[in-house]
Amino acid sequence: MTSISPLTASSFADAFPNSRKIMVPGPAGVAVPMREIALADSPGGVLNAPLRVYDTSGPQGHDVLGGLPPIRDAWIRARSVVELPDRDQALGIEMPAGLRRTVRRGTGGLTQLHFARRGEVTAEMEYIAVREGIDAATVMSEVARGRAIIPANINHPELEPMIIGRAFHVKINANIGNSAVVSSIEEEVEKLRWATLWGADTVMDLSTGKDIHETRQWILRNSPVPIGTVPIYQALEKVGGVAEDLTWEAYRDTLIEQAEQGVDYFTVHAGVLLRYIPMTAHRMTGIVSRGGSIIAKWCLAHHRESFLYTHFREICEIMAAYDVSFSLGDGLRPGSIADANDEAQFAELRTQGELNKIAWEHDVQVMNEGPGHVPMHLIKENMEKQLEWCGEAPFYTLGPLTTDVAPGYDHITSAIGAAMIGWYGTAMLCYVTPKEHLGLPNRDDVKTGVITYKIAAHAADLAKGHPHAQQRDDALSKARFEFRWRDQFNLALDPVTALAFHDETLPAEGAKVAHFCSMCGPKFCSMRISHDIRDAALEAEAAQGMAYKSAEFREAGSEIYVPEAIGS
Amino acid sequence: MTSISPLTASSFADAFPNSRKIMVPGPAGVAVPMREIALADSPGGVLNAPLRVYDTSGPQGHDVLGGLPPIRDAWIRARSVVELPDRDQALGIEMPAGLRRTVRRGTGGLTQLHFARRGEVTAEMEYIAVREGIDAATVMSEVARGRAIIPANINHPELEPMIIGRAFHVKINANIGNSAVVSSIEEEVEKLRWATLWGADTVMDLSTGKDIHETRQWILRNSPVPIGTVPIYQALEKVGGVAEDLTWEAYRDTLIEQAEQGVDYFTVHAGVLLRYIPMTAHRMTGIVSRGGSIIAKWCLAHHRESFLYTHFREICEIMAAYDVSFSLGDGLRPGSIADANDEAQFAELRTQGELNKIAWEHDVQVMNEGPGHVPMHLIKENMEKQLEWCGEAPFYTLGPLTTDVAPGYDHITSAIGAAMIGWYGTAMLCYVTPKEHLGLPNRDDVKTGVITYKIAAHAADLAKGHPHAQQRDDALSKARFEFRWRDQFNLALDPVTALAFHDETLPAEGAKVAHFCSMCGPKFCSMRISHDIRDAALEAEAAQGMAYKSAEFREAGSEIYVPEAIGS
Repeated sequence: MTSISPLTASSFADAFPNSRKIMVPGPAGVAVPMREIALADSPGGVLNAPLRVYDTSGPQGHDVLGGLPPIRDAWIRARSVVELPDRDQALGIEMPAGLRRTVRRGTGGLTQLHFARRGEVTAEMEYIAVREGIDAATVMSEVARGRAIIPANINHPELEPMIIGRAFHVKINANIGNSAVVSSIEEEVEKLRWATLWGADTVMDLSTGKDIHETRQWILRNSPVPIGTVPIYQALEKVGGVAEDLTWEAYRDTLIEQAEQGVDYFTVHAGVLLRYIPMTAHRMTGIVSRGGSIIAKWCLAHHRESFLYTHFREICEIMAAYDVSFSLGDGLRPGSIADANDEAQFAELRTQGELNKIAWEHDVQVMNEGPGHVPMHLIKENMEKQLEWCGEAPFYTLGPLTTDVAPGYDHITSAIGAAMIGWYGTAMLCYVTPKEHLGLPNRDDVKTGVITYKIAAHAADLAKGHPHAQQRDDALSKARFEFRWRDQFNLALDPVTALAFHDETLPAEGAKVAHFCSMCGPKFCSMRISHDIRDAALEAEAAQGMAYKSAEFREAGSEIYVPEAIGS
Repeated sequence: MTSISPLTASSFADAFPNSRKIMVPGPAGVAVPMREIALADSPGGVLNAPLRVYDTSGPQGHDVLGGLPPIRDAWIRARSVVELPDRDQALGIEMPAGLRRTVRRGTGGLTQLHFARRGEVTAEMEYIAVREGIDAATVMSEVARGRAIIPANINHPELEPMIIGRAFHVKINANIGNSAVVSSIEEEVEKLRWATLWGADTVMDLSTGKDIHETRQWILRNSPVPIGTVPIYQALEKVGGVAEDLTWEAYRDTLIEQAEQGVDYFTVHAGVLLRYIPMTAHRMTGIVSRGGSIIAKWCLAHHRESFLYTHFREICEIMAAYDVSFSLGDGLRPGSIADANDEAQFAELRTQGELNKIAWEHDVQVMNEGPGHVPMHLIKENMEKQLEWCGEAPFYTLGPLTTDVAPGYDHITSAIGAAMIGWYGTAMLCYVTPKEHLGLPNRDDVKTGVITYKIAAHAADLAKGHPHAQQRDDALSKARFEFRWRDQFNLALDPVTALAFHDETLPAEGAKVAHFCSMCGPKFCSMRISHDIRDAALEAEAAQGMAYKSAEFREAGSEIYVPEAIGS
């Protein structure tokens, strides 16, 4: 195993030189964290305003034994909730005092969807409006229509609210969690903090090893982002790992246990119906979803529909009482190019759409999980069918991976598909790390996965025409063109790596203001030459008389010139 | 600088365990190299045929001082050529004896386009037909129509012929070459062999540092793939690095010098016209092509169209005499998202199209270079305009990079765009390494760039529906599903990394046949569970009687079942 070096208060400063965290005030007393990147002046002493970017890193410098400050506590207390006895003690679980929280349950409507439908803007919505730079009325209306969700369990007061919907920034999820083979609680908390430092918008705790409950408690109390889980994993542990022995009761108790801890969204594979399972028998790679395979095995063993499906309304009632959101699992997603967009996959997607409606009847927020392995030309169909069949609920996809031939590089095979489906309308992209198909990711893999998916999400924001997305590209490119190397590094998604790569060949401080790098050397730097050209061209333009003046040629209208339809 | 450890004869075996190079015979005496990956049996002792994959690694185990065997020599000698005196001695350049070759020039039509138009299938075309698995008549016809090129200088007899065109596998190019800041001849030859070992289909030598002529000679004599250059770089060196001092004569002599060495394609920025330059003055990042900026500077300084444009027909005559192909440069490609698809870029593309026609008049093969930095939603327009304006000549793009915000990861920002534009019809993708914008790539960066672009090219082949592309995905996914771990690694684009990642957590030999990995552990492996499910479902199907039999549900036609239109 790779050794873990704990994050410290200085991690933020190390990761993001010349950045500071600011709190932007908004209505209802909200204070929204952003990262402000300070910039040097342009040549000639022209000031560059600092750039504010979305920040998921959470409060820094807190002792993990004490957890994060419960910023939502007052908002939650003001709702229809009751306090519950401490479940940990009943379970015989010892947690550090600082990681205990008052556990609450709703006694009336309390989901964000409930409030949105009543036309009520919650504090969470105000917070999100500031965070996204979009007015609160739009936030509320997108939630009310089911086109966006705010995963925010009332038992996760440490959460910095965020929204998942295609009218907003594309989000990314990072999976962490131990397995029976490797990892520990400490490592998983470190991975959580590490993933959010670099930009994970939500984190799924997919632990299947030991100490599932404790690991989750540590994670939740230290997480500024929504935490998702797949409750069937823990339910399976409770019945000794034998899928056939799973019961509705064991599953229900697990849901309640996790809802009371504060999990913000549950992956529930309720769309895996008995009759879909034979459709997977002739697949190249069968069923590749862990939850999906467990449920399928149960269904076959009992010759019955799964308890997830038959008890779906009871599941909704439980989730409504804590405002846990659904992430309806795609248990039959394709695990290979050969299986993409097949009948099993789409049969389940249609059922997901029917389940969405039931969730909405209960005021429970819902999003739908999507594939998987899909070649580029079959990606769009996934988005179109999901929009049509699932009533425009947010789509949340794993990749998709656009080829099977590159284990060790599946962050890249999948970033291609993720960027495309994000552009088409997917609201959240589940990251894939370089270790996919090969082993449990370590800290470096988590970072690589997060940065790669920040790229895919940002590329999608640009392509969707998100109003603020291009500001960062423009700021970075301007810095690049003006040879403000430090600014170029600091504006990058990963300043540390950008600096290290530059310094590999030109480590001297003087190279940070040089008008070239080792790629081309001083004489061949196109950008340096381009400055001379620009100066000459601008002079000519000012002089108004030279033969190559741009405007004249535009007017000339000769066929070789640029036609009207072209140009940005 | 990263230290260089020379490739040895065993590099191939180290890179590709359980693979061997085979020579597949074809008509006209050609013998085409392929890599054959041996596979273990499936469960139950079912044999798996070895998989043959396209191979660019060239003959292995040769001494770089002797160069590669001149396999095309007899074919070339049979054409209308004359032998020329040794230019190196005249230039006072000492080369090892083993790296000298007889230099030839054509005395009549001898380009592949010339032969194709006459309906003659050359040995090169026969070779390519075997290599691509496509009949020779199609190869000839695509070349004759200008929709594909075979870059194959008569002075590069070591070349293993390949084709660039959208009816064939998408190809990738790796850039190498020194700069004034770093690198040496030895390192560049190593990078060449390293890049082709991992799959580079062509290599561009972009050296701008010292010993340009010698470096190129070493590279050519040891290259099994086409070599491209940007001759203006060396011409600039000849005039002391001062762009304004460039002359047609210095450039012409450089073209001839490089054509006689055996360069297979030249990037020529002849589409940068004087009147387009002011269009770049208000750009975010001006002119980012090295060649483009040099030519633009010359044009402005002299207030004249460039000698590349005014002497274009003479350039064609030189290139026709050696069968050097054009890669018409995109000197005004966008260097930032803000500049994508602007008037300067498209003005030059239109001129490229006009130059294509002139090249074809001279029987010179031609492809067009494309961007650059382009957000996803603007990529397709590039392909459409190139097809329309440039008469379907092959398109050869750099990425495009789909965002500017990730220096250090631009292999990924660009792989997204590369895969997409490859799907849309681009014939060759110029790789981008992680060091782009930051410094000169080292050996690791070259490998990362090549593998990343093999992914993009393969994803594009799948999406285009290339008839053979999915074989490898299927073979790998089948191996994965059957827990043939060694086969999964060996079928990967980078077996070394796949194995290393797996072994990071489960190094024991027994884990290579285990029915799980450290990602999920033994109990939660969906594929293991899936085998049980499949067995049960198949049994049920055989028994024909169970309530969940697939076929029955297909016939039932209930709305929840899969509609006709769906399924792969």
